[in-house]
Formats: sequence, structure tokens, C-alpha cells
Amino acid sequence: MERRIKKAPSDVIFGIRAVIEAINSGREINKILIQKGLNKDLFQELKQALSGKDYTLQFVPIEKINKVTTDNHQGVLAFVSPVEYLNIEAFVDARIEKGIATKVLVLDRITDVRNFGAIARSAECMGVDTILIPTKGSAMVTADAVKTSAGALNRIPVCTTESLKNSLFYLQQSEFRLVACTEKGNVPLYETNFRGSTAIIFGSEEDGITSDLLNMVDIKTFIPMKGEIASLNVGVAVGMLLYEMVRQEKYA
Amino acid sequence: MERRIKKAPSDVIFGIRAVIEAINSGREINKILIQKGLNKDLFQELKQALSGKDYTLQFVPIEKINKVTTDNHQGVLAFVSPVEYLNIEAFVDARIEKGIATKVLVLDRITDVRNFGAIARSAECMGVDTILIPTKGSAMVTADAVKTSAGALNRIPVCTTESLKNSLFYLQQSEFRLVACTEKGNVPLYETNFRGSTAIIFGSEEDGITSDLLNMVDIKTFIPMKGEIASLNVGVAVGMLLYEMVRQEKYA
Repeated sequence: MERRIKKAPSDVIFGIRAVIEAINSGREINKILIQKGLNKDLFQELKQALSGKDYTLQFVPIEKINKVTTDNHQGVLAFVSPVEYLNIEAFVDARIEKGIATKVLVLDRITDVRNFGAIARSAECMGVDTILIPTKGSAMVTADAVKTSAGALNRIPVCTTESLKNSLFYLQQSEFRLVACTEKGNVPLYETNFRGSTAIIFGSEEDGITSDLLNMVDIKTFIPMKGEIASLNVGVAVGMLLYEMVRQEKYA
Repeated sequence: MERRIKKAPSDVIFGIRAVIEAINSGREINKILIQKGLNKDLFQELKQALSGKDYTLQFVPIEKINKVTTDNHQGVLAFVSPVEYLNIEAFVDARIEKGIATKVLVLDRITDVRNFGAIARSAECMGVDTILIPTKGSAMVTADAVKTSAGALNRIPVCTTESLKNSLFYLQQSEFRLVACTEKGNVPLYETNFRGSTAIIFGSEEDGITSDLLNMVDIKTFIPMKGEIASLNVGVAVGMLLYEMVRQEKYA
């Protein structure tokens, strides 16, 4: 009987040697799946390659890896990003040097890939300069995210950071206004100033923005609502805020 | 060998007798699937029950019906709505009598159930009074739509009409301002007046608003954009417009 091999998607690298090479050559890696109980020698080799680097590692049953591909993966598989992630500090420094006001959209642990893609689409349409996401606990740029974004993720730069908190401090010190959009906000969206360099922060639909980020922002804005549900989809909420930002620029 | 029956979902009625009874008792029916080459006697009986009524009928291979249920469907199956659809003319008349300004969100052939649900969620949150959809060529209120709407479709009234054009004329004659949101618009969203009774019209993502509806509206508004893609998800665009509507009410 012929054994059918499930081919890996194009954003997947598998096999210990190929994954180590991807790491060493600096490929953008979204996460690495490692088979639970991986051969110890292979694991040591991988560990060495990973040392000093900060990737999302997941130890999973072999079945989970087989669902992605049954090709000869040796229990190790990496999802690579179709785009290059930028460093947020370098990104804003370059713009500050040129004196360009910059809008940064910060997504604090948005995990749903469709939401992430939809948000990127709106961000590109409304002139956001870059999206900032944490390297861990966030949806990353995957082939699916690019598709949901209608290609926007190929156009709008995405920055990653190992610490949102540190990066937000950096932005604040660089004269950015930090605006968190939250149901706990005290300034209505239409009274919030979005002029000049601004970092706009949204949290996950499940539990909003991390409290240590909320504590450091300059403004907590909220979207005025009228209904009984009073809970907007995060992608829609981002859209509303970005519209207000553009409105202020074009009109008010 | 035991034959497993695929049970029908709760919003499905099947079998010639049950479907006819649903029709006669005035149940809200989203669409009816009829097996190609249905027994002629059964079809005549069904035809009689349908006479003078305007449902979406689809003639499909039996396999398509079997995908929904393999229970004894006799080649006939109806999807019923979990909510009651209202008549738009009666709905606005009742409000005009009481002198209440009314916001109607008109969806011209939004066919994606997820988009429809997401839009209903935003509409409920932003104080839209009713959603108006055509009986044909539109996503209807299904169990999936209710779920995507986060329950909003259980709260916000949904009106249906056999002719969007006629219903829009009726609204226009009743002192409603008709505002179409379209890429071909000539008034930026932030300069569009949403005060008082207003019907807001959005078209499908594929081909926008039907031209005979576009030709009759009072205002064609557009959302100012800055990026290169210049194409927002329709659910996000609806959210932006509804935010502007609330902003004008609360602030400007």
C-alpha cells in the first residue's frame, strides 16, 4: 500500500537540520513545534542553536506535528514569517531623525489570526505607519494572516518586541503620546487628540490590555456606545479609532 | 450494518408535510432546498402551498440535502429563521406616529453570514434601530449569524423587504435622509449629516450598491483613506460610519 505524505505548507520548515539552519541564517520564525520526548541528542543540538534567542517553543505530541506535515520532520518544525519583522526602536529613530510624525498601532496579545489580518488591512487603509506586536503570545504574520489582510501585511511594516512595556517606554521617551483604547477609558474617542506621533494600544478581546501597560499610558480613550451588548469586535473598534484619527487630520 | 442518520440542525425543517405546515403557519423561512427531480405529486403539493409567497427556492442534487440531514427529508428541506422578520413600513410608521427619529441600516446583498453577524453586532452597539435586508440575495438570520453577532441579532429588529427600492422610496417619502456609503461617494464621512431619521445603505463587498438604489439616495458618502489598498472590510466600514453617527449625536 502506498503511503501518502502530507506536504508541508510553504511557511513551514521541518527537520532538525533545516530548522537549525533557518535559525542560524536569521530567518523570521513565528514559532517552533518540538515533539514531546524528542531524541536527546537532537534536542541538545537544537538547544544550542536556540541559545540566546527568544522564540515561542511549543512541546507537542507528535500527532500535532503530523497534522502539519507527515514528511520527514524528525519531531521538529518551524513556522516562518512571510515578512521581515522590524525593530521598533530603529524604526521610530529613523523617522524621528527625519522629523516625520509616526502612528504606531500596538496590539497587546491579539491571538486570532483573522482579527490580526483584518486589523492590518484597516491600518494600511488608514495610514498607520507600523504595527507593533510582542514576539510571544500574539498572532504573527502567517500566510493566513496575509490573506485575511487582503495583502496589507505585505505593505505595512510589522515590528516585534520582546517587551511591549520597554518599547512603550521608549516611545514615550521619544515624545509619543500613548493612547490605550479600553472599555475602562475615561476620555471619549471624539475628544482624544491623535495629532503628532501617537502609539495606539488595543488589547485582546478576552482580557483587554495588560494592566502594567494601561498604567503607563497618557490617555485612556473609550468608544461611546448606545446598545445593550456594549461589546464591539476588536477589529471594528480599531477601525473606528483609526477613522477618528484620519478625521482629525483631514478636518477638525 | 447500522445506518447512521445525520441529524438536522435546529433551524432546519424537513419532509414535505412539515415544510408545508411551516409555510402555512407563517414560520419565518430563510430558504427552501428542493431535490432536483422531486416526485411530481409531491412537487405539485408543495407548489400549491408556495403559491403567492416569495421564498428563495433552490433546486439541488439530493447529496446537498443529505449534507444537512440524512433523516427522512423526502427531497424537501427548509431553513427557518431563529427570529421574526418585521415589515419595514409598519416598523417606521409606528415610530413616526410617536415622533421618534429612526436609524435604519440597509444591507444591499451582503451574502457572507459572518460579515452580516459582525455588522449586526456593531449596529446594536451603536444604537441602530433596525436592519433592513432583501428577502432574496442576502445573508439571512441563521443560527451562525446570531452566534457571530454575539447575540445582537436577538436584540436588534431585522426587517425584510421584497424590494429594497420600494422600501427606500417609502422611507424617503417619510422624511428619511438616504445615505449611501460607497467608494464612489463625493461627501467625506465627517461632513455627512446623520441627524434625524436616516437610512444608511451599504452594498456587498463584491459589487457595492445596486445602481438603481445609488441613483435615488440623497447623499453618497465616502470614508477618507490614506493607504494604497484603499479597500476596507465592509464590517469595518459600517463600524466607522456608525461611530461618526454617534459622534455627531454626542458631540458635534
